[in-house]
Amino acid sequence: MSVAEKIRAIASDARQASFAMARLSSSAKNELLTDMALALVNDAPHIVEENKKDLEAGEARGLSAAMLDRLMLNEARIKGMADAILEVVALPDPVGEVTGMWKRPNDLMVGKMRIPLGVIGIIYESRPNVTSDAAALCLKSGNAVVLRGGSEAIHSNVAIGRVLKDQLAKYGIPDAALSLVPFVEREGVTEMLKQEEFIDVIIPRGGESLIRFVVENSKIPVIKHYKGVCHIFVDASAEFEMAREIIVNAKTQRPGVCNALETLLIHKDIAETFVPFIYEALSGLKVELRGDKTFRQFAPKANKATEEDWHEEYLDLILSAGVVDGLDGAIDHINRYSSLHTESIITGDYANAQRFIREVNSGVVMVNASTRFSDGNQLGLGAEIGISTTKLHSFGPMGLTDLTTTKFIVYGSGQVRP
Amino acid sequence: MSVAEKIRAIASDARQASFAMARLSSSAKNELLTDMALALVNDAPHIVEENKKDLEAGEARGLSAAMLDRLMLNEARIKGMADAILEVVALPDPVGEVTGMWKRPNDLMVGKMRIPLGVIGIIYESRPNVTSDAAALCLKSGNAVVLRGGSEAIHSNVAIGRVLKDQLAKYGIPDAALSLVPFVEREGVTEMLKQEEFIDVIIPRGGESLIRFVVENSKIPVIKHYKGVCHIFVDASAEFEMAREIIVNAKTQRPGVCNALETLLIHKDIAETFVPFIYEALSGLKVELRGDKTFRQFAPKANKATEEDWHEEYLDLILSAGVVDGLDGAIDHINRYSSLHTESIITGDYANAQRFIREVNSGVVMVNASTRFSDGNQLGLGAEIGISTTKLHSFGPMGLTDLTTTKFIVYGSGQVRP
Repeated sequence: MSVAEKIRAIASDARQASFAMARLSSSAKNELLTDMALALVNDAPHIVEENKKDLEAGEARGLSAAMLDRLMLNEARIKGMADAILEVVALPDPVGEVTGMWKRPNDLMVGKMRIPLGVIGIIYESRPNVTSDAAALCLKSGNAVVLRGGSEAIHSNVAIGRVLKDQLAKYGIPDAALSLVPFVEREGVTEMLKQEEFIDVIIPRGGESLIRFVVENSKIPVIKHYKGVCHIFVDASAEFEMAREIIVNAKTQRPGVCNALETLLIHKDIAETFVPFIYEALSGLKVELRGDKTFRQFAPKANKATEEDWHEEYLDLILSAGVVDGLDGAIDHINRYSSLHTESIITGDYANAQRFIREVNSGVVMVNASTRFSDGNQLGLGAEIGISTTKLHSFGPMGLTDLTTTKFIVYGSGQVRP
Repeated sequence: MSVAEKIRAIASDARQASFAMARLSSSAKNELLTDMALALVNDAPHIVEENKKDLEAGEARGLSAAMLDRLMLNEARIKGMADAILEVVALPDPVGEVTGMWKRPNDLMVGKMRIPLGVIGIIYESRPNVTSDAAALCLKSGNAVVLRGGSEAIHSNVAIGRVLKDQLAKYGIPDAALSLVPFVEREGVTEMLKQEEFIDVIIPRGGESLIRFVVENSKIPVIKHYKGVCHIFVDASAEFEMAREIIVNAKTQRPGVCNALETLLIHKDIAETFVPFIYEALSGLKVELRGDKTFRQFAPKANKATEEDWHEEYLDLILSAGVVDGLDGAIDHINRYSSLHTESIITGDYANAQRFIREVNSGVVMVNASTRFSDGNQLGLGAEIGISTTKLHSFGPMGLTDLTTTKFIVYGSGQVRP
């Protein structure tokens, strides 16, 4: 069997298994996931042993200490993975929910019911916990899942996958409901992306180059985000202290993640006082500021922002900063440079808060809050399967519900169309 | 300017215009559409004149009488187009609706708000009324729209587009909010499908070959349906009269459309009586029946169904028919051959009705009703922009709401992430 044939068989079997998964009751799905969590903890020693093979191979290939740490599993981390599965158990099951029902003039009752998407493909990089996190979310929402982890974590992923798969039979679910693409070569990914007949959506999780590769090669719809160039606009009526707290949190609490602040916009009417105030606070925290001309007029020690800076996701202690002509200027700047991830306004003005919420169309739009809250857990979705910065299907952080769609259901009593 | 450059400029201008469309109030959008409807009626003589050019060119090219009729506009048809716009005016505006809001433990208020998708591309064939129908739906939902009609209707479409565009300026909306791709060559379509930076979704409306061309060439997400192989399953407990009424309606009321019945499945326990009963009713209406072995046992004059028949969308007075081992057999058959369009069960059994509704995951699933109701208008969505048989974003008939997405909105009071 060629790689192409093997991948096609995996995807086709996953499609068949998805019918059984879709029919499983909420309580059976919860029991299945609970069994999976217990099995992970029980088999932790074996998983740790397999993980050692990946670590040794990684060391031999010269992976950085940070990469090796992301790859490393111990019993505590495996316990953490099991706990994450149990958090998914605790979430309400979206499948079967009727989101609305209405009566037509001919007495047909028409409604919309949530159903699983079918088969979800997840393509991810080094962290092996994604194997169990993603599997739990996909199965809880009644889908089959095809997982393709990074080659550097192949032994860990196969061991975790095996433990999870072993729980399926007891619930009458075919093994293929949770499939791992075992081929370490990139050909495995390319072939997987051709299975549009069997896989309904691809969710890539990883760096921009992985995501671009997936988008460019996929015949299957992809839900993705490339980067987060998050903006905060400080309105003329902002409380300076609140603005400082939020900006410092958004920029420095964890600078390496996609919901960290990257561009600060300041209302021109407060530039003279707010620019030196925020410059002092941020430079005291070792944040490099890159300002436009007006910003530098009031903070002469700031570096100069170039056109590229407004596009930049630094993921570091660097912040671009500009002075704008009020709310319209801020919205224009955001419309031009936004990555459609997260934007926040700091304001005391009711009308401006409402206009910002209404007129800025990024995945998450905030008033008087840190962009760091832009995350499925923080927003109350429970576990997060990813974040979308394109508007089709899902926009913003994605939870269980985003792994479902709705069908129309129609209850009749013999109606025919005149 | 090359065709590629021109198309890129059209798409980029449409993106800019979409920001203004997204901000327009519901009442302004309704006034704009009302003006458009009035202008169409007022300019009907000019549109009819331009339409004559298309008709003459079509005759010269040897278009069939049916095609020419689909192309033809007269004052009554233009009045119909204006009335269709006024029906869209009467629909509620989905934009700005908050579909849910909840409070987090830190007092952040988090909600989801409906927003326009942005720029919608519509690619369609001969009927010029799609120009105004699609424009009305896209604009009402706060989107900009790029329209690409068939070359055979180019003069009609340009004339209709011009009349509609002329109403935009009064509402401060740039001309580009409603754009026509004027190039009659297929290159115009191909270039349009590359504008993923500016166009958010493509909706093709037309035959299977057009849709395949669009899917294969698009870098932009496409919402589509290829065909409707709609099934009716007659359960053992079905009332024969009700079943006959529904089957006759679903097959013969308008056989050439995608929600017409194509495959009939019959419970084996009633085959002996129901098969001759329905064979007589349908063959009396000139429907050709193609049955499996058991069906032909009880209706010996029926033709033989081959494997291909179960995949076939006849769009004609032909029906494939098979006898199945009850509900499970029917669901298995549907899962194997379904086009994910519409399926209906005829039954008197409560549990089977509920299982069919729950377990058949097509876009529309019905009990005791004709598949011909599978249509946005009939289901109560108001006007229909299309129908989707893929599960991402929308599934089943699509109305105004399907031209929107939701963003997260967050109201804070200075919260930062610990």
